[in-house]
Amino acid sequence: MKLALLLCLGPLVFALSPEDEIRGVLDRQVADWNRGDIAAFMQGYDNSDQTLFIGKNFTRGWREVLQRYRTSYSTREQMGQLTFSDLEVRPLGADYALAIGRFHLTRDAAAGGEASGVFSLIFHRTASAGWKIIVDHTS
Amino acid sequence: MKLALLLCLGPLVFALSPEDEIRGVLDRQVADWNRGDIAAFMQGYDNSDQTLFIGKNFTRGWREVLQRYRTSYSTREQMGQLTFSDLEVRPLGADYALAIGRFHLTRDAAAGGEASGVFSLIFHRTASAGWKIIVDHTS
Repeated sequence: MKLALLLCLGPLVFALSPEDEIRGVLDRQVADWNRGDIAAFMQGYDNSDQTLFIGKNFTRGWREVLQRYRTSYSTREQMGQLTFSDLEVRPLGADYALAIGRFHLTRDAAAGGEASGVFSLIFHRTASAGWKIIVDHTS
Repeated sequence: MKLALLLCLGPLVFALSPEDEIRGVLDRQVADWNRGDIAAFMQGYDNSDQTLFIGKNFTRGWREVLQRYRTSYSTREQMGQLTFSDLEVRPLGADYALAIGRFHLTRDAAAGGEASGVFSLIFHRTASAGWKIIVDHTS
């Protein structure tokens, strides 16, 4: 009887909402960044040629975005310590969502100094790997 | 016979794709801006408290976005002449879409000088008014 109840409730209890899953992706990205692991951080992005990073210009493709991070943050000191704040997630239909927020990089002056700004991320629910960032606009 | 054929083909011939409709919204915005009509330009945005403009900070709500434009571009000279380029539209499911591109403002030095940058816009297909911008991130 108890087992049957657990089997019924299990999927309800453990199913995360899209917002919870997306917040989980971002929490993992922050932890990966703050361990100095850019390759792990990049797992938050969809592994696709269409993946887009928008800063001052457009960077297209997962590999190109990875390369951009490796070039811009070539040492552990340049990566600093990342925090996100004021995070908000909005669904865009069933399989897309927007996440907006602020980032702050705590960093020594010699490594580039403090940095902060805002971001808007478009997430897509992929069939094989769950919610992934397909567009990152950071300014 | 000819009339029956026209009645059949009409909807096919005249139905615009979401991309065409979105490009139409942006074309109208550029024309409205370049006529100095910010109120008409604002018709491209969803008339909602949720409408979001992201620049250096977040501006929430259609009225607040309008007010931001009126404050930042308080004279016809400050508005300058707007052009968009490198425009690209991507569907995000059936009722949302992303438009990215570059903007350029041709403007006299006395009115603030030339300005340019990139934007990412999230469009939503509203039931009553067609495709409208719900999020504008410009940097």
